[in-house]
Amino acid sequence: MQYFKAPQKEALFVMNELLGYEKHYADLGFTDATPDMVEAIFSEAAKFAENVLAPINASGDAEGCKWEDGVVTTPTGFKDAYQQYVEGGWTGMTHPEKFGGQALPYSLNSVMAEWFSSANHSWAMYPGLSQGCIETLKEHGTEAQQKMFLHNLVGGSWTGTMCLTEPHCGSDLGMLKCKAEPNDDGSYSLTGTKIFISAGEHDMSENIVHIVIARLPDAPSGTKGISLFVVPKFHAGPEGEKLDRNAVTCGSIEHKMGIKGSATCVINFDGAKGYLVGTENRGLNCMFTFMNSARIGTGLEGLSASEAAFQGALAYAKDRLQFRAMTGVKNPDGPADPIINHPDVRRMLLTQKAFAEGNRALAIYAMKLVDVTQASQDEDAKTFANSKLALLTPIVKAFLTETAQESTSYGMQVFGGHGFIAEWGMEQLARDTRICTMYEGTTGIQAIDLLARKVVGSNGKLLTVFTNEVKEYCKSIRDKSQFNAWSNSIDKHIDEWHQITEDIMQRAAKNPAELGAASVDYLMYSGYIVVGYFWLQMAVVAQQKLDDGTGDPEFYKAKLHTAKFYFDRLLTRTRSLVSSMESGADNLMDMEEEQFNIV
Amino acid sequence: MQYFKAPQKEALFVMNELLGYEKHYADLGFTDATPDMVEAIFSEAAKFAENVLAPINASGDAEGCKWEDGVVTTPTGFKDAYQQYVEGGWTGMTHPEKFGGQALPYSLNSVMAEWFSSANHSWAMYPGLSQGCIETLKEHGTEAQQKMFLHNLVGGSWTGTMCLTEPHCGSDLGMLKCKAEPNDDGSYSLTGTKIFISAGEHDMSENIVHIVIARLPDAPSGTKGISLFVVPKFHAGPEGEKLDRNAVTCGSIEHKMGIKGSATCVINFDGAKGYLVGTENRGLNCMFTFMNSARIGTGLEGLSASEAAFQGALAYAKDRLQFRAMTGVKNPDGPADPIINHPDVRRMLLTQKAFAEGNRALAIYAMKLVDVTQASQDEDAKTFANSKLALLTPIVKAFLTETAQESTSYGMQVFGGHGFIAEWGMEQLARDTRICTMYEGTTGIQAIDLLARKVVGSNGKLLTVFTNEVKEYCKSIRDKSQFNAWSNSIDKHIDEWHQITEDIMQRAAKNPAELGAASVDYLMYSGYIVVGYFWLQMAVVAQQKLDDGTGDPEFYKAKLHTAKFYFDRLLTRTRSLVSSMESGADNLMDMEEEQFNIV
Repeated sequence: MQYFKAPQKEALFVMNELLGYEKHYADLGFTDATPDMVEAIFSEAAKFAENVLAPINASGDAEGCKWEDGVVTTPTGFKDAYQQYVEGGWTGMTHPEKFGGQALPYSLNSVMAEWFSSANHSWAMYPGLSQGCIETLKEHGTEAQQKMFLHNLVGGSWTGTMCLTEPHCGSDLGMLKCKAEPNDDGSYSLTGTKIFISAGEHDMSENIVHIVIARLPDAPSGTKGISLFVVPKFHAGPEGEKLDRNAVTCGSIEHKMGIKGSATCVINFDGAKGYLVGTENRGLNCMFTFMNSARIGTGLEGLSASEAAFQGALAYAKDRLQFRAMTGVKNPDGPADPIINHPDVRRMLLTQKAFAEGNRALAIYAMKLVDVTQASQDEDAKTFANSKLALLTPIVKAFLTETAQESTSYGMQVFGGHGFIAEWGMEQLARDTRICTMYEGTTGIQAIDLLARKVVGSNGKLLTVFTNEVKEYCKSIRDKSQFNAWSNSIDKHIDEWHQITEDIMQRAAKNPAELGAASVDYLMYSGYIVVGYFWLQMAVVAQQKLDDGTGDPEFYKAKLHTAKFYFDRLLTRTRSLVSSMESGADNLMDMEEEQFNIV
Repeated sequence: MQYFKAPQKEALFVMNELLGYEKHYADLGFTDATPDMVEAIFSEAAKFAENVLAPINASGDAEGCKWEDGVVTTPTGFKDAYQQYVEGGWTGMTHPEKFGGQALPYSLNSVMAEWFSSANHSWAMYPGLSQGCIETLKEHGTEAQQKMFLHNLVGGSWTGTMCLTEPHCGSDLGMLKCKAEPNDDGSYSLTGTKIFISAGEHDMSENIVHIVIARLPDAPSGTKGISLFVVPKFHAGPEGEKLDRNAVTCGSIEHKMGIKGSATCVINFDGAKGYLVGTENRGLNCMFTFMNSARIGTGLEGLSASEAAFQGALAYAKDRLQFRAMTGVKNPDGPADPIINHPDVRRMLLTQKAFAEGNRALAIYAMKLVDVTQASQDEDAKTFANSKLALLTPIVKAFLTETAQESTSYGMQVFGGHGFIAEWGMEQLARDTRICTMYEGTTGIQAIDLLARKVVGSNGKLLTVFTNEVKEYCKSIRDKSQFNAWSNSIDKHIDEWHQITEDIMQRAAKNPAELGAASVDYLMYSGYIVVGYFWLQMAVVAQQKLDDGTGDPEFYKAKLHTAKFYFDRLLTRTRSLVSSMESGADNLMDMEEEQFNIV
């Protein structure tokens, strides 16, 4: 099947009707990003996703990337699609005009990134990885470095990577071994092995620019001795000329569960020449600059899989005839009724739909905050947006990718045994999106970031900044009596959220393991509440539109039904999460390591 | 890695210390199945699983089955392993001596089936599929049919299949189209296409015997017009001689997410000669005979994946160094501490451990019931066992396979990004076990079987038969005060289970969709309670052993710790399931089909 349609109307609903993006763009001075222009760009992006990327998704998975003698060949059609992407000007959309970009808002690009990833997760990673590299050089590179690299990266003829992980160090970057020795000419020689480097080597661009973390010879141990370097595959001249080959080679590519069209590379630096980016030993700080957008980007990949799985399952559920409906014959001319009539199939479809639409609202809200942090002239507004973003980023990353596991699993389950068969595309979605809870910081890492670093680390202040907004909103709709039950539920959840935070902080003061013991439940609990807040707002807007008689009433009625489903059957998952969190750390920590043993 | 160790001690604990299998076997007249003999057989089975099957698991996945011109070649080593299995006498273990079997109990075989499937899910399906075929012919075949087929099947030189599914009909067998026309000689000519036929064609045995459901020319429509036939790949003489080829061909094999070493075949019957098994139009009734054991067998596949994923994750968690423990340095000589010290890693490992061990106790309890239904001379005992089995079978099938999705997902998650890489084996476990919630009746089908057919269909009686046992047990341990909290929790859950059943029945009297709307939550809810009952019993036995000072105290302490984890963090999942169930059908059924549409 491999059916995919970019959810333009859903995105525009969130941007225009829910979150006031027209004013948002105008306020930030994005004068080109008018509603008409946004729609025109979306329409082109949708065509590209549907007609160029989706058709090479299944074949890319079947074919995979090939490695031979250090050369990586991407699946048939990937290179050509990338060429079209470059020609369409997509690579530079959000970057400054002085580097050849179009200076459009971050959010505009990110909304469409969801669709590209829905259509072809593997392919979308190649241009996606360039963004981190561009951001690094834009923020922290010298003018000379920017001249050497940025025009080509923004134009798309060169692509970029981020080289962090080493075999013995993943999350714990303090254990980093890769070395950088200073040369006489001010450059550095890098030596070491990096693994899991997405887009580390491929045939889609003329050159590959690696951002590499490494240690200087007398760097302090741990994370305080990490510096950042830019190391190209081919040396670059001062104006971005492509010169001779650098000592950077791809040792192999990984055989993985999914995203098989994405080359996951072992990259060897054998005295490769590179340049220091930013200050010595402050490499991790430079990287934190765009950690939020990178993590939101991974969350979007999860969202993209939820959406695609929903679309596939829905099409099948309307088509597949099996059994008669429990409530009476629905398809008298056929031998059986479409399975969408069966309550449990609807439960699965509505779970997918509620996650896709609710998570999208949260994601587009987070993108709006990123826009402010990047483009606002108002320092207070920036600080305020940064506070909310600090809290929401780990939730976006982990909640959108964890729920994607459930949504893609239901994508298969709605198909029954057919879901397991490659040709329907459902199993590929599940395999591809499985990486999303692991890379760019596992769910466990996001959960510790949220609970320990953000919430407890700010003594609860970052939580309050966001929950004040939610409580204000609930107060503001008090006169809409039809929403009182949901609004009260959110309001009570907010109080409970604070209470639980307080409980955990008290327990953690005595036993620091309490933070880790509660963390993932806490993150998921937070996610259900936050997305519930967006479902409440979507329902209120939808009812207003119905009352006003504007727009497509079926679209708004669907929003109200889905909100009801969310409040009845998904938000209620907080009940078990609370029980688990409140049970404390002892049930995890009391068992001796040896007692886990297999006998 | 591909590490696997058969959990012999765990199985023996459940059989001997928890469920009184020694007396059970003696009561049923299995005089050969003494504890010593059981241990000796287990020891051989463990070696076979660990040394023969596990080593060809990853290679079998990478290589897959090959189809060419109707011929299917299984992965390297599969045929040889099967030959060793046949020579070891494993194929006939539970079958009557008159067909060349060893007449040992069903349960004995099933306990080991878990290990074979842990070691190599794909491979284990080939001998597994023969069982249904053998059971059918043993129960319903004529003496002539038994002579033609059973010796070879029991001896293993021939293998069998079950041919049910067709392209347009999966769960809804009433839509079956395959035709059987009577021949003059009393045989039938079968014409039609079957899909998803596991072990339908392969190179491991000399002949393949298909049990096929089809319609006679003037059969009533629906499930009441389905008859059962035996149709061999090669015709058979009266004493089991292999003769010329029958008109049965393999049209292709499926490309699937997992179990790639298992050939999933399209089988075409083009006027193939077969023989009626049992009575005309009563085919489905014949199949229900061993539905329980087939579904428990699929549940065991889920359990096997949970166990294997736990073993892999545990080994990695002890080995991988990353960060220091929150509670202080644990590995001062190393650069970081093993990740098993991190609370969230323990949460994942304990979830796997609690599911593997709790689910195994439930499974071995269900096997005991199957033994009684098969071998008891006491009709009352048989009826009683059948009642409990009717209730528990869909729970075993669906709960053990659904929790396997979580356990195998954690298997990957504990590894971080490495979990996504093929060489560690974790992603294969997740892919292989994904089929288990879909084949042999999806989770949705099991849930309707449990709630509508078994519980409501018996007006609650089948539920009461089991819950009386649980309540009796809770009463019997009332004096053990240390277990009062857990015992009271189970007791209250049992009351709630009845109350919820009552609620659903009342709602369903008005709206039959209420059954489907609650069904999967109801099944999972039931599963958590039932497994909680077994964790309670295991904890009580473990404490008794510690008090007595017999056996390995660390083993029993681990049981108590894991029980605590189960009661604190897994049984509490019933809270959200109750909320979802009690929310009723409207939040699923009120949305119009068109409102699901993608815009």
